[in-house]
Amino acid sequence: MDEKEFFSELEALREGRMRLSSSTLKERNDALNLVSDALEKNKDWIFSENRKDIEKWKDKLSESVLKRLLFDEKKLAGVRLGISDVVKLPDPVGKVTEKRELDEGLVLQRVTVPIGTIGMIFESRPDALVQIVALAIKSGNALILKGGKEAERTNRALFESIREGLSSSPLGSSFLIQIESHEDVDRILKLDGDIDLLIPRGSNEFVRKVMANTNIPVLGHADGVCSVYVDEFANLEMALEIVIDSKCDYPAACNAVECVIVNGKVKDAFLPMLGEKAREMGIVLHLDESARDVIDGAPLKDSDVGREYLSLEMNVVVAKSVEDAVLYIQKHGSKHTDAIVTDSIESWRYFSSHVDSADVFWNASTRFADGFRFGLGAEVGIATGKIHARGPVGLEGLTTYKWLLSGHGDVVSPYTSGVKKFHHREIK
Amino acid sequence: MDEKEFFSELEALREGRMRLSSSTLKERNDALNLVSDALEKNKDWIFSENRKDIEKWKDKLSESVLKRLLFDEKKLAGVRLGISDVVKLPDPVGKVTEKRELDEGLVLQRVTVPIGTIGMIFESRPDALVQIVALAIKSGNALILKGGKEAERTNRALFESIREGLSSSPLGSSFLIQIESHEDVDRILKLDGDIDLLIPRGSNEFVRKVMANTNIPVLGHADGVCSVYVDEFANLEMALEIVIDSKCDYPAACNAVECVIVNGKVKDAFLPMLGEKAREMGIVLHLDESARDVIDGAPLKDSDVGREYLSLEMNVVVAKSVEDAVLYIQKHGSKHTDAIVTDSIESWRYFSSHVDSADVFWNASTRFADGFRFGLGAEVGIATGKIHARGPVGLEGLTTYKWLLSGHGDVVSPYTSGVKKFHHREIK
Repeated sequence: MDEKEFFSELEALREGRMRLSSSTLKERNDALNLVSDALEKNKDWIFSENRKDIEKWKDKLSESVLKRLLFDEKKLAGVRLGISDVVKLPDPVGKVTEKRELDEGLVLQRVTVPIGTIGMIFESRPDALVQIVALAIKSGNALILKGGKEAERTNRALFESIREGLSSSPLGSSFLIQIESHEDVDRILKLDGDIDLLIPRGSNEFVRKVMANTNIPVLGHADGVCSVYVDEFANLEMALEIVIDSKCDYPAACNAVECVIVNGKVKDAFLPMLGEKAREMGIVLHLDESARDVIDGAPLKDSDVGREYLSLEMNVVVAKSVEDAVLYIQKHGSKHTDAIVTDSIESWRYFSSHVDSADVFWNASTRFADGFRFGLGAEVGIATGKIHARGPVGLEGLTTYKWLLSGHGDVVSPYTSGVKKFHHREIK
Repeated sequence: MDEKEFFSELEALREGRMRLSSSTLKERNDALNLVSDALEKNKDWIFSENRKDIEKWKDKLSESVLKRLLFDEKKLAGVRLGISDVVKLPDPVGKVTEKRELDEGLVLQRVTVPIGTIGMIFESRPDALVQIVALAIKSGNALILKGGKEAERTNRALFESIREGLSSSPLGSSFLIQIESHEDVDRILKLDGDIDLLIPRGSNEFVRKVMANTNIPVLGHADGVCSVYVDEFANLEMALEIVIDSKCDYPAACNAVECVIVNGKVKDAFLPMLGEKAREMGIVLHLDESARDVIDGAPLKDSDVGREYLSLEMNVVVAKSVEDAVLYIQKHGSKHTDAIVTDSIESWRYFSSHVDSADVFWNASTRFADGFRFGLGAEVGIATGKIHARGPVGLEGLTTYKWLLSGHGDVVSPYTSGVKKFHHREIK
């Protein structure tokens, strides 16, 4: 889209956003149902556009990526089910999270509201486009989104269908903008005044680039360097099962384990078990010197430390104590998800209070770090920052709040002079 | 401080931070009392250093700034009272804000934790230094702080006394660093990995500079361009009282009104009242053309629109409707605090749902926008961003959360394969 066109759409978005942000839950749910119907109605066109994308890329992409790119009857059913799930979720906006009478008749409320405009940049999966639009509508947020270039035609068809569906909603569709080019992305990174939050989903390198090149707050994570620490008081069978699940359930996931930290006191017992199972599962182990005293494997190179493999490879290091393990995680982890396997409540207490990650798990697989598994109803992404939402982020992460104060002509000067005093009475 | 010295203090802070972030409430409250005692013990030294600062600056600064710079027996009593108030506040960390059993025996908790390290840069008031240190200790956050150069000797004396007090606490004092030079400030703006949140308090220009030159999240506000809208259904006596209080209670405050928007239907009745009172109070009015049809005053120049006067000056503009007033605020306000005066609940509903500011007030002075008046117990600052805390920010704004999951060897693969299902049962 050229610059003039973009800014004219942006002007329309500013108006559409105001209407959307003050809409009722019913208006937003009705809009979601209209979107779902329009996708069903336009499905043949969407499928045919998707076949053209696949045709174009089929020699250049791996089979697993092509599988994610595919948008067929089954994927459509999935996204429509997703929309109806989002319709069923409670309204994330308009919730009163604090209510307090400051003085007689002067009532303060803190109420959740949409953030405003979200900028979302994501990779090839076209079903993600629909999911993101649904979450934005439900939470009352305007959305500027860019999908992966591999799904260009599919995304266009999906987006046009969504706008068509919204055209019969009183909310309209001007609160949605789809962009496609790198120039468009560079442009939105500069829109501090219009975009309130950026959510980039893609390669680590891409997310890091976004974070470094914008003053807009960014929600997400560049790295998912997760560890499992096997304590001296661990049930070793359990530890093995957790490590293997954390790696093998989905090795390319951000919540897959990349480093196993083994307490020195149990290394002689645990490492042979791990070595055997790793061979069986085809996991390549990168072992530090102390681990190589016990089993064979590739030596851990400096460049491997803190690496996110996203495949059937992982580091194995030996720690003297839980304190040592925590220091290792603080230094080489990415504040995403870290687990301890132990039967000692003292070890858990130390680990959970000192590991500074979004998710800290006890005797459970790192793969549980997920919005659906956490019961958040939906997942916007996983954030490793400290500000705003953290860990798996649900709809709540797309809201902020405002303070509403209602009085009867109340002025501050009598409080300044001491004639009046606040009584600050909480209202349930 | 030279670079080497700075990084050696930073190394110590990283360790001190870990100990602090996992400390008990009693340890933190004890530390606060030690700080308070040390200030009392060292007061003669602190007062004498303060006299040297004042001596140095007395010909260069206005009387009101010198008043803020003064640190005497009365100010000391104030900061010690402030510390004892902070001791009494409930623990902001360790609160369980969600608790859910995902499946039999697999329990998820969301627990509040300190953010980590706060970077605070503020202006001349030395009492602010003590207040900020107290809030940081209470919330378990490490702190890198820089005070104003005018209070250099006072701040050093205060800081040294605080460290002295903390030396007998098990928490130590290495989680606090004081910096002084501009080079130090430039250095901390780059410390993405160490500083989790920056809180700049000072001139608009300074805050904007910080925001533009760092990738660290910033909490605060550059501008406080607050409006009061006098609706067609306003009680005009009440409107006048609110406008005058919003301006005159403390004209230099960020929550003082800078623009009065008057509905056209009441301008003939309201503006003469406002004009007379403004003359009486010495307020200079900048009037748009429509307002000048009714009363005399300086014509509103383009460069005055959206201006933060911070003095006894303000703009007066006429709006056709509440919709019009909202659009004006969206365009020229700074998302800080905006008030409507009206007896119509419809006007309030429209105004409160469409004005996108942190604080939206009904029939009350903009000057109520304040952490103490809101009953937050303490005020870290006022934020106009949308992410994390918004409006007046209390101790809660210095916390984030982590997710703790505890299981009994739970792995994800049976859920992936469909053998097991989550039951997501909320635990009260």
